[in-house]
Amino acid sequence: MSDFSVDLRLLADTYPVGDLELSRVLLMNDARFPWLILVPRRAAMRDLIDLAVEEQHVLLREIGRCAQTLRNMDKPDKLNIATLGNVVAQLHVHVIARTVHDAAWPRPVWGVGERVSYAASALQVRLSGLRAALRIQVTQ
Amino acid sequence: MSDFSVDLRLLADTYPVGDLELSRVLLMNDARFPWLILVPRRAAMRDLIDLAVEEQHVLLREIGRCAQTLRNMDKPDKLNIATLGNVVAQLHVHVIARTVHDAAWPRPVWGVGERVSYAASALQVRLSGLRAALRIQVTQ
Repeated sequence: MSDFSVDLRLLADTYPVGDLELSRVLLMNDARFPWLILVPRRAAMRDLIDLAVEEQHVLLREIGRCAQTLRNMDKPDKLNIATLGNVVAQLHVHVIARTVHDAAWPRPVWGVGERVSYAASALQVRLSGLRAALRIQVTQ
Repeated sequence: MSDFSVDLRLLADTYPVGDLELSRVLLMNDARFPWLILVPRRAAMRDLIDLAVEEQHVLLREIGRCAQTLRNMDKPDKLNIATLGNVVAQLHVHVIARTVHDAAWPRPVWGVGERVSYAASALQVRLSGLRAALRIQVTQ
């Protein structure tokens, strides 16, 4: 556990939402898409099947919580859930709420256009809403 | 169960490998990438979280079996696992073995270049190998 840290490229593109039992939850700083990233807090993990089997099931439950949260908040037409990691090898899972009117539809979101950073006020609203829905306490 | 059928667009692009407990396993007809698709045999499912929770966990185990099979057969640098479904809405999960020398690296595979169909002999070898590794019996 003590060797865990989030890859610097993931950190640079995201804001921390907080920690679930296994995963750190990050909000992608791209206001075009409601987009969470889960990073299991385990060192040296690349692929889903590198995690212990019981932790894969914990991760699945956390993916489900994040997906349900985005469904409730954003009423998407489809949820995209993916672990790719071709650029950032550290195991991480994207949970993205898609709508037929979004900037990439029907393509996958990766590499499409330019990210649109959240405005400060919208960011705080978003983070507060996510933390309430995911029941994540953040100690200041 | 009786209402289940695989979307015609998925069928057109794949060969059937066979059935696991929950999922039909398909081989994408693209020799550039070792690429399986799992389709849970349940009618009217769109998103992962539409499946009953216990079946989500069955699906996770089947994803793990497919991922381990591709890892053993193809020695990939990374496994891409994703449920997108922006084009074909029926719930299906991609399990793709990626290498740093493949035709799309480091991009996701979707929409990159033209598919390369398997030659008949290579297809039979591939299907036989997959069925043996996944312990799928096919009745003729």
